[in-house]
Amino acid sequence: MQQERSGGRAADQLRDVRITRQYTKHAEGSVLIECGDTRVLCTASLQDKVPPFLKGKGQGWLTAEYGMLPRSTHSRMDREAAKGKQSGRTQEIQRLIGRSLRAAFDLRAFGERTLQLDCDVLQADGGTRTASITGAMVAAYDAFSTLLASGAISAMPVRHFVAAVSVGVYRGLPLLDLDYVEDSGCDTDMNVVMTEAGRFIEVQGTAEGEAFDRATMDKLLDLAQDGIAELVRLQQRALGLAA
Amino acid sequence: MQQERSGGRAADQLRDVRITRQYTKHAEGSVLIECGDTRVLCTASLQDKVPPFLKGKGQGWLTAEYGMLPRSTHSRMDREAAKGKQSGRTQEIQRLIGRSLRAAFDLRAFGERTLQLDCDVLQADGGTRTASITGAMVAAYDAFSTLLASGAISAMPVRHFVAAVSVGVYRGLPLLDLDYVEDSGCDTDMNVVMTEAGRFIEVQGTAEGEAFDRATMDKLLDLAQDGIAELVRLQQRALGLAA
Amino acid sequence: MQQERSGGRAADQLRDVRITRQYTKHAEGSVLIECGDTRVLCTASLQDKVPPFLKGKGQGWLTAEYGMLPRSTHSRMDREAAKGKQSGRTQEIQRLIGRSLRAAFDLRAFGERTLQLDCDVLQADGGTRTASITGAMVAAYDAFSTLLASGAISAMPVRHFVAAVSVGVYRGLPLLDLDYVEDSGCDTDMNVVMTEAGRFIEVQGTAEGEAFDRATMDKLLDLAQDGIAELVRLQQRALGLAA
Amino acid sequence: MQQERSGGRAADQLRDVRITRQYTKHAEGSVLIECGDTRVLCTASLQDKVPPFLKGKGQGWLTAEYGMLPRSTHSRMDREAAKGKQSGRTQEIQRLIGRSLRAAFDLRAFGERTLQLDCDVLQADGGTRTASITGAMVAAYDAFSTLLASGAISAMPVRHFVAAVSVGVYRGLPLLDLDYVEDSGCDTDMNVVMTEAGRFIEVQGTAEGEAFDRATMDKLLDLAQDGIAELVRLQQRALGLAA
Amino acid sequence: MQQERSGGRAADQLRDVRITRQYTKHAEGSVLIECGDTRVLCTASLQDKVPPFLKGKGQGWLTAEYGMLPRSTHSRMDREAAKGKQSGRTQEIQRLIGRSLRAAFDLRAFGERTLQLDCDVLQADGGTRTASITGAMVAAYDAFSTLLASGAISAMPVRHFVAAVSVGVYRGLPLLDLDYVEDSGCDTDMNVVMTEAGRFIEVQGTAEGEAFDRATMDKLLDLAQDGIAELVRLQQRALGLAA
Amino acid sequence: MQQERSGGRAADQLRDVRITRQYTKHAEGSVLIECGDTRVLCTASLQDKVPPFLKGKGQGWLTAEYGMLPRSTHSRMDREAAKGKQSGRTQEIQRLIGRSLRAAFDLRAFGERTLQLDCDVLQADGGTRTASITGAMVAAYDAFSTLLASGAISAMPVRHFVAAVSVGVYRGLPLLDLDYVEDSGCDTDMNVVMTEAGRFIEVQGTAEGEAFDRATMDKLLDLAQDGIAELVRLQQRALGLAA
Repeated sequence: MQQERSGGRAADQLRDVRITRQYTKHAEGSVLIECGDTRVLCTASLQDKVPPFLKGKGQGWLTAEYGMLPRSTHSRMDREAAKGKQSGRTQEIQRLIGRSLRAAFDLRAFGERTLQLDCDVLQADGGTRTASITGAMVAAYDAFSTLLASGAISAMPVRHFVAAVSVGVYRGLPLLDLDYVEDSGCDTDMNVVMTEAGRFIEVQGTAEGEAFDRATMDKLLDLAQDGIAELVRLQQRALGLAA
Repeated sequence: MQQERSGGRAADQLRDVRITRQYTKHAEGSVLIECGDTRVLCTASLQDKVPPFLKGKGQGWLTAEYGMLPRSTHSRMDREAAKGKQSGRTQEIQRLIGRSLRAAFDLRAFGERTLQLDCDVLQADGGTRTASITGAMVAAYDAFSTLLASGAISAMPVRHFVAAVSVGVYRGLPLLDLDYVEDSGCDTDMNVVMTEAGRFIEVQGTAEGEAFDRATMDKLLDLAQDGIAELVRLQQRALGLAA
Repeated sequence: MQQERSGGRAADQLRDVRITRQYTKHAEGSVLIECGDTRVLCTASLQDKVPPFLKGKGQGWLTAEYGMLPRSTHSRMDREAAKGKQSGRTQEIQRLIGRSLRAAFDLRAFGERTLQLDCDVLQADGGTRTASITGAMVAAYDAFSTLLASGAISAMPVRHFVAAVSVGVYRGLPLLDLDYVEDSGCDTDMNVVMTEAGRFIEVQGTAEGEAFDRATMDKLLDLAQDGIAELVRLQQRALGLAA
Repeated sequence: MQQERSGGRAADQLRDVRITRQYTKHAEGSVLIECGDTRVLCTASLQDKVPPFLKGKGQGWLTAEYGMLPRSTHSRMDREAAKGKQSGRTQEIQRLIGRSLRAAFDLRAFGERTLQLDCDVLQADGGTRTASITGAMVAAYDAFSTLLASGAISAMPVRHFVAAVSVGVYRGLPLLDLDYVEDSGCDTDMNVVMTEAGRFIEVQGTAEGEAFDRATMDKLLDLAQDGIAELVRLQQRALGLAA
Repeated sequence: MQQERSGGRAADQLRDVRITRQYTKHAEGSVLIECGDTRVLCTASLQDKVPPFLKGKGQGWLTAEYGMLPRSTHSRMDREAAKGKQSGRTQEIQRLIGRSLRAAFDLRAFGERTLQLDCDVLQADGGTRTASITGAMVAAYDAFSTLLASGAISAMPVRHFVAAVSVGVYRGLPLLDLDYVEDSGCDTDMNVVMTEAGRFIEVQGTAEGEAFDRATMDKLLDLAQDGIAELVRLQQRALGLAA
Repeated sequence: MQQERSGGRAADQLRDVRITRQYTKHAEGSVLIECGDTRVLCTASLQDKVPPFLKGKGQGWLTAEYGMLPRSTHSRMDREAAKGKQSGRTQEIQRLIGRSLRAAFDLRAFGERTLQLDCDVLQADGGTRTASITGAMVAAYDAFSTLLASGAISAMPVRHFVAAVSVGVYRGLPLLDLDYVEDSGCDTDMNVVMTEAGRFIEVQGTAEGEAFDRATMDKLLDLAQDGIAELVRLQQRALGLAA
């Protein structure tokens, strides 16, 4: 399964991952995650209120927004705030981040509060949505830690760590963690979100070129499973929870 | 794998499917697809132009829009035209329909034309997005048949038939083709789009309750594969291409 | 006043009208009205609340929205939800439907509830706004019947039946109930809404070609009066209130 | 038909009308029309281009927009520019003004130009839409006069003068030219647009309270016909075309 | 410092200013201010409520909106209500008017009320934003006078009179109160808002051509100071507070 | 003029400034500017086209957009892309940045190209608009350097360096370069943009509390002048143009 990837990476090898906590000073959690040349700033903001549909139910909420700086990409994209609307792609991604992180935490365990995650791409080189999920997990953890430290909650409301990665078929070979060149040219692109226990939260696979068969599906899921296990280790190490 | 489903349906059994062609008179293709109580009107409209990014490239385009009538649902939803924007869910679905149907046809084989698919839900009872894809395939086929009949193209630009179905885990059991009650209460919901040859176009699975393991994933994909094979037979029978 | 109309129709003759109740299953009232090839789905939804300006006043409200499916028309129209706004024409029509139906019912006789009418055109062949009014009357009646049956109100809050029809001058001759071809080519187009007692609710006449004189106005009102009387009979027959 | 109206006006009497031409200096036509306390500034702007659907067809276009200053009314209305959309009422009115004035002029007689009418209400006291039409006729005439004077056209493109007035049933009596108090309290309100020859361009009647009968309709049309004849005289006198 | 200006005006001379109170009848304050050919209608509307962020704080609020009639300008501008958004320029101006007038009044001295100022340009010939501020001061004063007369407040909540003027460098010479021709061709344009005591509320200077030096800045501020002193005298004379 | 400022800063002392070039990899110019805790990412993107109003005129254009990440601020702000519009403040700032930078370059000296500046605030602590201008100058310089290096232009199109700083009166004392605490509590806030030669491009001063007198104005301009001279030195040093 060996082939020429940028930086001589193996097919089942993640790009270098760097997780920098407290990257900005105002947010309760603020993480810069870098996966190769992809850089996403993930902030977690706590608010002492919930959306109307949850008022008085004694539980919290978690939601996410996603954006790309206009020149995070190879050629400049229009600024969504100036256009007056978020694209379908943006909404799809922020809904995915929200669902994935809601699966990570126990919404009934942190009171009538909302955790708002903002994932803003400073530089894009493929895999921005999966990097967002992996980084937001750490930012959310940090935000809940401030609640715990202040005595507002008595235990961390984590159900399990969650991380995400992309896999795909590029020039006929299944690869882990596609960069922009691989992503643009691949036949199949799949984003996988899993728990630390290797269970699935989300699977979103699309055949952009040829439809793919069951055997390929199986190989891609194998790659994702190993990659996510490694990402969870990196999250926990960044938080000082693992060696 | 037997359990109590509405209408005494087996776990691996589709709801009754009815495909009515030429349901309305203006569109080049017009199909009412009914899957149990879910009813979607799928129209296919041909236009002799392509979007700007394809002008002069000698190929065609295919795109889709999706909508729900305000009272297609149990309680009335706001009308998106009145609110002035399509929800994230709507955009996600219409992007999915578009990608799935673009995989079904050869965009280079019908000239500089656009096939516009409109999938409008008249009555919803679960599975509206998958019914939309399955019905739109037939409507698109009818529209291209008019092009063929008129001599504008010399062969049908079909690469393969495409159909879609939902699968999910409801009360611990993997089920095919969830209705609204099953869909609302399920732990895992997966929409699968496949070709007539059993290859994957799209897989979108979400753990809405518990994260699911690899064995469950495998069972769900098995259910989907058989269901889609049956749906393709029904599409082809409706078009008079199969007995 | 005889001339060649499609289907050999006389100048003072309505197109065939079919009124199908309970066309969809979720709405309190759901009517498909067909006037020739024009088909409109009219649903009536009851909600236990009123707009802010009526809160606490002990009366109800009734409002309407109107839409056309993108390919209900000869060539495809843009989807208003995708464009992000309703056209002036759409707003004009839904305001007309709302005013007309508010005249039919006693808003003080069904409590602090809102009846929301949705008129969605599945197929258009002229006269969609008048068909919407005639069909919405039946859907609203059905919805209030469910309130009566449940004991929530003690009498039907109907003031009088209301129906609507278009009349116009086409090739110099006054005609009842214009189809699309007649409507597009006519000099004068008038939409009339009347009660079962032959009194006017709305008259909206426009000279699209030549301005018209008082004598023509009188003939058009005569035609409308007879047509509406017939439509009210058909409404009441569909509801089992007349033979 | 005598009754107590503000200022001792008779039932068939117009309010005082003042038409001031060249009210502002930039527009090709600029008219302040005052009907009692209602004051509307009507400007006519000529542009040397037509909308895309008319390009190259050798004809002109005429269109209208309508607005109310926020405090033209008794209590302040929200500014439509700040809300980001024009109300249904505004759109309905500007469509009416446009249709009415297009009937007054020969669109094929002034080249590929657009006449843009802007009717802005400075002070409202009932009848703003009909005052807009009556004033816009004069502003449009002035604008075309500049074209004629410059030699760009060789004859005035007027088909016939057009004016408008409201009529209604207030406390049981048919009245001409309702002011705000009468308009708010009336059972029936009708706006009528006619040519100088007494032919109808538009009739828009609404029963806001009781439905009205044919005899009332006839009386209202009589009142409107006489009122409009008087308004056309005032328009022509303001333009120096009549004594 | 003499040069050829339209109307033979001196460099340090204001255009003719006319302030007409009670220009329209509904608003609590209604002022037409004319500075040369620039005409702005300023209305002041009192409402017995404050924005949410001030509720229960026992103080009032003052805010402003600004608009231009589409043909107030040399060539027609698009109507902002039709475009669905206010331009950046419009928002900048209405924020400036609001800030300037909030400095003129004591927000804690008129209860939980909002004074809404609307400045609508009927005819533009340069200096519309400064004319708006100068006129709005008088309209606001009139509105508060009605409150005082009704006994709702016991003293006028005025801190100091505020007026505004533009200054600029045109063809190398510093000028007071630029008209449109001067404004369009000037190198530097500065809007100054001051109190009756000659203290600054706002200074907004822009080098549209050459950057300007400190000496020029000083001359422009001198011109503005004298012009504003004269404008305050005119405001007070219009209100009968000065001879 | 000594007083207690955060970090023991003198009244006429800038915060620490760090300018990092090539902060992201895709943009032709990419600068992170840090002024104390304020951090703004300024990217400059070159496009080979100009806006419609400049087509064929042989000159270029330069424009700017500004945004704040939702949690760049002390408490989270709504995301403008999600709200669907940019605030008045945002538009005001990006118009200011655009005007300031257009003054720095000769638009006729780089062909029919557009330089698009994007200033995105990663962390806010006062002075984000002036930091944006100062940083954008460097990013624009870098972008034009790439044009020069490629031979597309033969000389740098710089007219003069431009930088910006805020000054204000805080607790009675004039201060240079306000941080957030000072900015929020100050009586007067002024943003000044100047050239390297000490000439004014923009002055925008606002009395947020007490109106200020001419002597204060003079002191503030003195402070700004010295601060901007220092900022220009830092810009040129960062670009290797000065020691």
